[in-house]
Amino acid sequence: MRSFEELSLSFSTRFETDHFPTTPDTLYGPNRYFLKLGGKRVRPVLCLMGHELFDELNEDTWQLATAVELFHNFTLIHDDIMDQAPLRRGLPTVHTKFGMNTALLSGDVMLIKAYEYVSRISTKHQSEVLHLFNQTAREVCEGQQLDMDFENRDQVAIDEYLRMIELKTSVLLAASLQLGSMLGGATQRNQERLYEFGRKLGLAFQVQDDYLDAFGDPEKFGKQVGGDILANKKTFLLIHALEVADPSTKAELMQLMQENPADKVARILGVFRKTGVDAWALELKKRFLNEAMSALDDIAVLSVRKKPLIDLAHYLIQREH
Amino acid sequence: MRSFEELSLSFSTRFETDHFPTTPDTLYGPNRYFLKLGGKRVRPVLCLMGHELFDELNEDTWQLATAVELFHNFTLIHDDIMDQAPLRRGLPTVHTKFGMNTALLSGDVMLIKAYEYVSRISTKHQSEVLHLFNQTAREVCEGQQLDMDFENRDQVAIDEYLRMIELKTSVLLAASLQLGSMLGGATQRNQERLYEFGRKLGLAFQVQDDYLDAFGDPEKFGKQVGGDILANKKTFLLIHALEVADPSTKAELMQLMQENPADKVARILGVFRKTGVDAWALELKKRFLNEAMSALDDIAVLSVRKKPLIDLAHYLIQREH
Repeated sequence: MRSFEELSLSFSTRFETDHFPTTPDTLYGPNRYFLKLGGKRVRPVLCLMGHELFDELNEDTWQLATAVELFHNFTLIHDDIMDQAPLRRGLPTVHTKFGMNTALLSGDVMLIKAYEYVSRISTKHQSEVLHLFNQTAREVCEGQQLDMDFENRDQVAIDEYLRMIELKTSVLLAASLQLGSMLGGATQRNQERLYEFGRKLGLAFQVQDDYLDAFGDPEKFGKQVGGDILANKKTFLLIHALEVADPSTKAELMQLMQENPADKVARILGVFRKTGVDAWALELKKRFLNEAMSALDDIAVLSVRKKPLIDLAHYLIQREH
Repeated sequence: MRSFEELSLSFSTRFETDHFPTTPDTLYGPNRYFLKLGGKRVRPVLCLMGHELFDELNEDTWQLATAVELFHNFTLIHDDIMDQAPLRRGLPTVHTKFGMNTALLSGDVMLIKAYEYVSRISTKHQSEVLHLFNQTAREVCEGQQLDMDFENRDQVAIDEYLRMIELKTSVLLAASLQLGSMLGGATQRNQERLYEFGRKLGLAFQVQDDYLDAFGDPEKFGKQVGGDILANKKTFLLIHALEVADPSTKAELMQLMQENPADKVARILGVFRKTGVDAWALELKKRFLNEAMSALDDIAVLSVRKKPLIDLAHYLIQREH
């Protein structure tokens, strides 16, 4: 079993190959550009780790890890269009640099390319892999749609938000792990526990992401603290604050969101602290992390094999940036 | 073997089932809306005919025909966004009715749903089916990109236009036939000849489409004659006219395209007639149709089995609407 750093490096090296035909360059150039923006390659590494938990890696798993990463990049290209995001990792997004139509089509072809990699794995596992891959792909789209829907709603319940996060973020992490474990020959039960580990890890990760946007150290966080607050983004913190605040505090919160005063971030952070949302979020994150670890515990392999996954979970969840 | 009408009716009846989950309705509602707009379902019927050429239909082929039709509808939803088309079959396009972001995501999920149907076919054929499906899907995207590229270019050579049409239109018709024939147990050689039949039929169809836009009977054509001319669309006719016209006629054509006078359509039609483009196009269509029929001839099955395909080719190519 190798560590996240080792697997990430190996994967990135392999992934640097050219995945696309030469022509038309107007279509595939933007794909190449986007993949060069890089990333931590968390999902393909989860796929590799899911396999290594049960068996030695083989060529199929590298192909499937590539499929997972291409799928993730497809979602990023299309999400950037929908969010009208000008930058990703500090560089222009595909639609900013090449236009909306080309970004749309480059995303489409990135998704198709992901399926090309899925189709390369040996026939033995193709059916079950394809089934989970399809289901996950569809759920990620559902999550993105719910996220957009919530933007246009006044109130979102915490359970609805949880489901959205689960679909938009968790299922791909969970499926990456399970897909790898399928190829590693895991039993159905072990696959399910591993999926559950990934699902809960994704939720813990999102709680932390929401928390850091509000309470992170600006120097370590690497982006503007309070971005979600300024955008009135419905996060774990905001949704819970609206649920637990007394009527006058809730009214204050609603007014701040509507009027956007200059000291909006500081004042909303004040409300978050007053309503105890900060401590609640840390507790919630801990709960999800514990549930993830408990699912991992349940998997019937030697605990030494689980170490890379435990390390990765702590790396992802205790990060301050 | 059944006729196009019989198969189209059977397929349409089966296809009316609900292909999507109930929620989120904001995502799947637009998919349902779009599929209800209808269509001739040519591609799935080609898939069924490709199978019936060699063997009795089975459940796998119906699933695969559904995948092909869903894929085609995915391309339509995204193409409508790219072309900023307000209407399809007389009703608002998805992005017009539900907004651009939802149209983008509904298209994505329609493509994924197509793969879900591919994944349902029996394992024996899954690998080769997936391979051709992926390749075709990618080529269709390439064709759409070339089509957009050509809009921004002054001159397009006839060979480039042919390649674009082949990718954008022909390969899906050809692949639909071949996919069906795979499930029908066709030999590699028979599959290749059938693909070639579809490829050439697609080219003949596009020549006719371009021809009818200029020279069709307005009452039978059902849409405005000269639409391509008004939009300066690079068609078989325009590209060939620019290639064969003498310098002064070519200059006249370029001027008409730039200045858009009120009698533009009539005058460009005059140029088309003067340069003999009308007769050339009919000849070209005939050549492609002959080449298609010759490929079909080559297929080693009893000629009575080929009748539905021959009838369909004549129906598609000799239509005046």
